Amino acid sequence: MIPSLHQQSEELRNNNSSSLELTELALQRAAAADGEGARVFTRLYADSARAAATASDTLRNAGIVRSPIEGLPVSIKDLFDVAGETTQAGSVALRGYPVATESAVVVKRLIAAGAVIVGRTNMTEFAYSGLGINPHYGTPRNPWQREVGGVDGGRIPGGSSSGAAISVTDGMAVAGVGSDTGGSIRIPAAFCGITGFKPTARRVSMQGVLPLSENLDSIGAMAPTVLCCAMMDAVLSGEEFVAPVAHPLRGLRLLYPTNIVRDGMDEHVAASMQAAIGKLSAAGAVIVEQEVPAFNELAAINAKGGFTAAEAWTWHRQLIAERKDHYDQRVVSRIMRGKDMSAADLLDVLHSRRKWIAKVEQQLAGYDALLMPTVPIIAPKIADLQASDDAYYAANGLILRNPTLINFLDGCAVSLPCHAAGTAPVGLGLAAAGGNDRRLLSIALAVETLLKQ
Amino acid sequence: MIPSLHQQSEELRNNNSSSLELTELALQRAAAADGEGARVFTRLYADSARAAATASDTLRNAGIVRSPIEGLPVSIKDLFDVAGETTQAGSVALRGYPVATESAVVVKRLIAAGAVIVGRTNMTEFAYSGLGINPHYGTPRNPWQREVGGVDGGRIPGGSSSGAAISVTDGMAVAGVGSDTGGSIRIPAAFCGITGFKPTARRVSMQGVLPLSENLDSIGAMAPTVLCCAMMDAVLSGEEFVAPVAHPLRGLRLLYPTNIVRDGMDEHVAASMQAAIGKLSAAGAVIVEQEVPAFNELAAINAKGGFTAAEAWTWHRQLIAERKDHYDQRVVSRIMRGKDMSAADLLDVLHSRRKWIAKVEQQLAGYDALLMPTVPIIAPKIADLQASDDAYYAANGLILRNPTLINFLDGCAVSLPCHAAGTAPVGLGLAAAGGNDRRLLSIALAVETLLKQ
Repeated sequence: MIPSLHQQSEELRNNNSSSLELTELALQRAAAADGEGARVFTRLYADSARAAATASDTLRNAGIVRSPIEGLPVSIKDLFDVAGETTQAGSVALRGYPVATESAVVVKRLIAAGAVIVGRTNMTEFAYSGLGINPHYGTPRNPWQREVGGVDGGRIPGGSSSGAAISVTDGMAVAGVGSDTGGSIRIPAAFCGITGFKPTARRVSMQGVLPLSENLDSIGAMAPTVLCCAMMDAVLSGEEFVAPVAHPLRGLRLLYPTNIVRDGMDEHVAASMQAAIGKLSAAGAVIVEQEVPAFNELAAINAKGGFTAAEAWTWHRQLIAERKDHYDQRVVSRIMRGKDMSAADLLDVLHSRRKWIAKVEQQLAGYDALLMPTVPIIAPKIADLQASDDAYYAANGLILRNPTLINFLDGCAVSLPCHAAGTAPVGLGLAAAGGNDRRLLSIALAVETLLKQ
Repeated sequence: MIPSLHQQSEELRNNNSSSLELTELALQRAAAADGEGARVFTRLYADSARAAATASDTLRNAGIVRSPIEGLPVSIKDLFDVAGETTQAGSVALRGYPVATESAVVVKRLIAAGAVIVGRTNMTEFAYSGLGINPHYGTPRNPWQREVGGVDGGRIPGGSSSGAAISVTDGMAVAGVGSDTGGSIRIPAAFCGITGFKPTARRVSMQGVLPLSENLDSIGAMAPTVLCCAMMDAVLSGEEFVAPVAHPLRGLRLLYPTNIVRDGMDEHVAASMQAAIGKLSAAGAVIVEQEVPAFNELAAINAKGGFTAAEAWTWHRQLIAERKDHYDQRVVSRIMRGKDMSAADLLDVLHSRRKWIAKVEQQLAGYDALLMPTVPIIAPKIADLQASDDAYYAANGLILRNPTLINFLDGCAVSLPCHAAGTAPVGLGLAAAGGNDRRLLSIALAVETLLKQ
């Protein structure tokens, strides 16, 4: 069991540990020859992390605690600007390009909150896949059955925030800050057995973040618990931290769609979901199984590539013209779908989305949250997906399918571990319409507490 | 001098007239064989207008006055939905298409406010030109030098809200409700010697309005005075009417750009502007002549057609596929520019606009308002523009150029008459960044009062 932010913070408060000790331990694990560190981080900030930790300890000794995450080692995904560095976003195509002159808003907030940034985490190149496979920096291995393969074996961590998840599971950071355009926080959280929170997009500033889709991008953290995610979210959003209170389970109304979200579900995910639903029902929650007809429309709405292809192509076209062969070909080929989208195609998506959100929100009005498996399958093997384009694209589509529904809804969502100890990790997804972030965290806290019993 | 809304309202209040009398007079003028009515209205609501007027008089006699425009005859542009009718927008391409099931929000607000809607006014087909020439319903003639030509002679009213302006100049309505995507309220106001107010786009609901460009469309009124426009704006926006107070002229800082907005200005417009500026300076206003560098960039940003072409094409493509030959060919040819715009082209406009607005707003921060000729020339002759595509497109580009700057800024603007009595009408344009609507109306009121002295 990896220690939570609140536990670690408690250790610091009680003087049982220091920020420098936690930081050294994180750095040690990141640098361990037999660990995943080399594939988790695209860059380690050993020196500045030690400096930040020392400063934090000095302040704490003087009675100053800047935030609930004071002194705790965290990682940041490779797409956040850090002043003086070129943001690479898991690619090699941007090498030699101009450095950022200013850090991203969230990086500045983390620093101001006293967090210790240990490094930049590996990711799917430019965040454009849910698998977490990266041909340039390697693919950090999922902790589940890691020992079974070699370095090239093992299972995918999920993506795109792959390194962020493994930085947490492997104790190289107590939380990993990621981005989520179609599941990039929730998928690795689900596959790796930790918790991921994707807030409503407008909640956290995207300034200084290399974009994938301005219409869909959002920023949140992966961490051991819901409370950890809430603590991180307060810092990332710039809000005052108010600890969420668990929402009563009795009478909690959860909508479990019968269509789309369970298609292709494997046995272990189905059994884990069923067990969780059994516990929820026993605790008095009302699980309503119902079709969400709008979900059937999404594939057609996005058939030409949706916002992501159009917006990614717009951002990348210059770089592709200059350095197409530097890209992961499985990424660039999908970005290039945006090239063929017309202005009318894009406006169609925009108009369809408005109506779609209205329909889904109307159906959700009678419920406290949506319930679904974050991903309908357990983490596939890296080698199987590397072996063929077909396998890669098929798995990618299946894995992104459920989380993407919530990005398109402009909603918020949490993925919680719901598998039995010792079995493959499974994420239980809870989601709500946009703006309900705090309420959703309260619901997730109640569900998490129940599932851990 | 056409009577203002406040004068007419005063007449009603003092029982010197009745809504029915005002309405009958308006309808009489609209139906007069030697008048412009046939070209001003695409549909007259004689019966329902009389009913509304009678109801208004009944209520007033019982002491009930629903709004500052209670009982006053107004016209609505042909692009607002009226329940039970097919919205034609100055076209014939939509004949036989389904009727609107609900009236536009602004139509419902006018009715609830006790306004008497006398008819739907003619316009440039689908609002896509600033000239006001309409091959299907005829072109209402500008009051200036109307007697010089025949029915096919005379000068353009300006557009696209052409009929709206002439309904006011000719006493067929005390105010005309129009829309403004690139000057469609301000241009006819300028050409016809009345006042036009284009509010910030988000100020008035577009629900139930046939769109030209969702990003640029806005709704406002043309009327004899600034106060009339403010009264109409309160009803259209659903705000409580608070009469604007004239902003002090002493120390009022107005930015008069030296670039773009004066290019191609004719002598009469230049002389009229100079006279107005002389009065303003004498009254203590500070007129700063300065380049606005961002204005030089706009043509390049919109070189592929901008929002309007892309959004109009998206809306029209189905109708064009079915009935292209029903369109005004000078309109449909420009709509079709949007067909070749890619998603990236549209996103480029969106991104460029954000930066452009920031630049212009930064420069505007030191000023109370922008000052410019609404249109740099007086109204051209209808026959000259009908004669050749080149003349039509050249005049259209020149006439739209200045007003379009403010739509792209997402700002608000007023056009005020500033010509000497008996000379060709000239509009003085005042504009401000978005959201400053009430303040701009106060400034315009002060300028109007000065110019009328």
